[in-house]
Amino acid sequence: MNSSTDTAVKDAVAAWKIYRTWKPQRIIELLHAIADQLDGAKEHLVPVAMAETHLPQARLEGEVGRASGQFRLMAQAVADSTYLEIVIDKENLALTPPRPELRSMTMPLGVVGIFGASNFPFAFGVAGGDTASALAAGCAVVIKINPGHPEVSTMVGELMVRAANSVGAPKGLISIISGLEAGMELVKHKDLRAVAFTGSTHGGRALFDAINAREIPIPFYGELGGLNPMFVTQSAINARAKAIAEGFLASITLGAGQFCTKPGFLIAVGASALNKELSLLVAAASPQKMLNQRTQGLHDSIRDEMLSVQGMKLVASSKSDAVDASVTVMTISAQDFLKNKEGAMREVFGPTAVVIDCASKEELIAIARSFSGTLASGIHGEENDSTLPAELLSILEDISGRIVWNQWPTGLAVTWAMHHGGPYPASTNPLFTSVGARALLRFRRPIVYQNFPDVLLPAPLHSDSPELKSARIDGKR
Amino acid sequence: MNSSTDTAVKDAVAAWKIYRTWKPQRIIELLHAIADQLDGAKEHLVPVAMAETHLPQARLEGEVGRASGQFRLMAQAVADSTYLEIVIDKENLALTPPRPELRSMTMPLGVVGIFGASNFPFAFGVAGGDTASALAAGCAVVIKINPGHPEVSTMVGELMVRAANSVGAPKGLISIISGLEAGMELVKHKDLRAVAFTGSTHGGRALFDAINAREIPIPFYGELGGLNPMFVTQSAINARAKAIAEGFLASITLGAGQFCTKPGFLIAVGASALNKELSLLVAAASPQKMLNQRTQGLHDSIRDEMLSVQGMKLVASSKSDAVDASVTVMTISAQDFLKNKEGAMREVFGPTAVVIDCASKEELIAIARSFSGTLASGIHGEENDSTLPAELLSILEDISGRIVWNQWPTGLAVTWAMHHGGPYPASTNPLFTSVGARALLRFRRPIVYQNFPDVLLPAPLHSDSPELKSARIDGKR
Repeated sequence: MNSSTDTAVKDAVAAWKIYRTWKPQRIIELLHAIADQLDGAKEHLVPVAMAETHLPQARLEGEVGRASGQFRLMAQAVADSTYLEIVIDKENLALTPPRPELRSMTMPLGVVGIFGASNFPFAFGVAGGDTASALAAGCAVVIKINPGHPEVSTMVGELMVRAANSVGAPKGLISIISGLEAGMELVKHKDLRAVAFTGSTHGGRALFDAINAREIPIPFYGELGGLNPMFVTQSAINARAKAIAEGFLASITLGAGQFCTKPGFLIAVGASALNKELSLLVAAASPQKMLNQRTQGLHDSIRDEMLSVQGMKLVASSKSDAVDASVTVMTISAQDFLKNKEGAMREVFGPTAVVIDCASKEELIAIARSFSGTLASGIHGEENDSTLPAELLSILEDISGRIVWNQWPTGLAVTWAMHHGGPYPASTNPLFTSVGARALLRFRRPIVYQNFPDVLLPAPLHSDSPELKSARIDGKR
Repeated sequence: MNSSTDTAVKDAVAAWKIYRTWKPQRIIELLHAIADQLDGAKEHLVPVAMAETHLPQARLEGEVGRASGQFRLMAQAVADSTYLEIVIDKENLALTPPRPELRSMTMPLGVVGIFGASNFPFAFGVAGGDTASALAAGCAVVIKINPGHPEVSTMVGELMVRAANSVGAPKGLISIISGLEAGMELVKHKDLRAVAFTGSTHGGRALFDAINAREIPIPFYGELGGLNPMFVTQSAINARAKAIAEGFLASITLGAGQFCTKPGFLIAVGASALNKELSLLVAAASPQKMLNQRTQGLHDSIRDEMLSVQGMKLVASSKSDAVDASVTVMTISAQDFLKNKEGAMREVFGPTAVVIDCASKEELIAIARSFSGTLASGIHGEENDSTLPAELLSILEDISGRIVWNQWPTGLAVTWAMHHGGPYPASTNPLFTSVGARALLRFRRPIVYQNFPDVLLPAPLHSDSPELKSARIDGKR
């Protein structure tokens, strides 16, 4: 089903012209059909994904469920109908100037280009959250498969097309393309209306620049990652240094540290107590199988570069073997960190993290201020912490999409309240989430109809539409 | 009160750190204080604006009321509290994986840079809708004054600072800067968090490119204009050619044609009946006083270039005099228009417009398809029009922020339902409006707090917060 980019986009435009007229119930049917196909094909998909990504079976099985769950949550979001954002102002000729009848709702953007991630072949892959939310929003999709797992991506693409056919979707509504060049053609295609991307800051920035250089720029939703700094108060160290060290290690090794929510930095005043616990725990940890050789090579070289930063010391490395990546925790003083920010403040894809040791609360605050946009951040603290958590929070609010308290940032709930994004480089558009029910809002835009009779309006705006129950009318909801 | 860009932004950051902690009631107080100052100073402001813009007294007086009205509408939007977009998922340990407590709301972006327009010294100026919505959103503002009306802009800036002082706002919350270079420094300043702009496609694109070249890109909300094509069905011509011609002329001369919502193109099958009416009406029209000599010179030269496009014919010009712009309507066949799109499809700032004469319904549809993003578009039709309006509508929906039926696009209601924006170049972000109550959403972004105790959360997220009445909790609202 691979097609040339131009053909894929043109077919998607034709399909979209039909799909945009679908009633919500049919879209819900499509989303459920894809979810069912994913669940039904789990045992065929997982072995292929295992071979391509080296991720373990249980994780990949869980991830298929997460992917199908995203389609089912999106079906709920469509059923909910608040995403239509209906706002109506009735005609009022008594006002100066007289107010015409205005009926506003959102409509789908059109054809969306999607770039999935290497680290989640299902949940952020061809049938990931971006695809689920674009289809839920009423858009057609052209998906560029990630070169890290082409075979399972193609299988998932075919499976989605089968699901689409089974509910009578127009041909071309969902298609996949492959190759770097095809991806660049996609974002430059004049008929494309938005792009969603999950991946590295480097790759995301290249797409961002290409999209903004278009004659007609379009929305680009890039989720580019995060350093996800976690701060620990003295009281928390006193109360539970070992539990914090265990939690940190578990979080940085979840998925072999290949999560965009991995806490790359742990920051504390008097971090030596944490380092002491970590040195024992890390030394006893197992080496981690990464996605592929290239990924592991990159991990190892960035780790080594960071270890050579002035003032950086190894806390511990896990045993290593010939093929897998060793878990590494290193530490640096706050002063050295701030002096060598460029080398020390890097995102490492893999099971490596840094403990920053602060000599004072003031240094801790200075470190907090030194981070820029991040998907997540967090604080481990205690009730008797005085004002430090509040002070940290006011800084972290300014750079984070999500802030966690006494938990770890890995393990992302796919829900209504979730926000996965944040100031650049966490995302290229801090106003939207790429995970959770509200992710579909990225692919709809408002339009307002002035003075139109019911018969010409979209059904949700008719005077007797059931969707008006969630509408704002004359300013009131 | 002019200050250097760097000083203005730094002071604004300091002010924002205080302002962001303000309760909604204090923000509402500030917005009302500015509105009151504007209304109170009307008789001082209008003569200065008249001298600088040549706009007539009644229009400018009305515009002051429109500007103060925008601040009052924003105060209503803040009081409404739905802009907080509170979404809460309660902890649920029974789920796989267990779901943590997630509390999400929006927060202000920070310091916003604002570039006002030349054609509305008040409503889209220093105290325009962008300023009102950024302040309502909880942001500090640094405003670059438009060189077309520096004196009245400075007066309005000082007046806003007085209003801010009167309610105890922190110094630096509102400031103005001037000059092209200062404006460029503003959009490149590392502490700026968003930019709003109303102006030309050319100027807006230059800012767009500069902002996207930043190391840390930020949201840019540019409202760049529109060609605002209006289509007329045969039945409508048969029923009311003269009324349509009158309405069109009134719309293209409102504000001397210097509105971004001016209908630049009137398109019909058998437009000769319209041209016949227009030739009489336009010939009798008065010449129009434009903003300044430069604006008029630009208008005249683009008009003359368009008149020289192959197949373009003059319908009529109003009398001209030595100083003012003549009203001009020209006409071209659909075939010639499509053949000479680059020359014929231009936005003219001023009282000039084009009638496109189609030989068939198919040509009319082809013309509709030839337009790209526009703030507004519209149709004049009749009940017995068969399928043409619906067919046109499906095309116009794809390019328009607003579509009007049997009315004209000029005269923009500032309300809850209004959408002023649309696909590029109508705006640089089609998901947001720059006019109406929802304009403040541009300057807030979601953030989610995971597992936090009430005491550390912002007040609206507390378990007993009155704002929870509009919240979505566990997926339900």
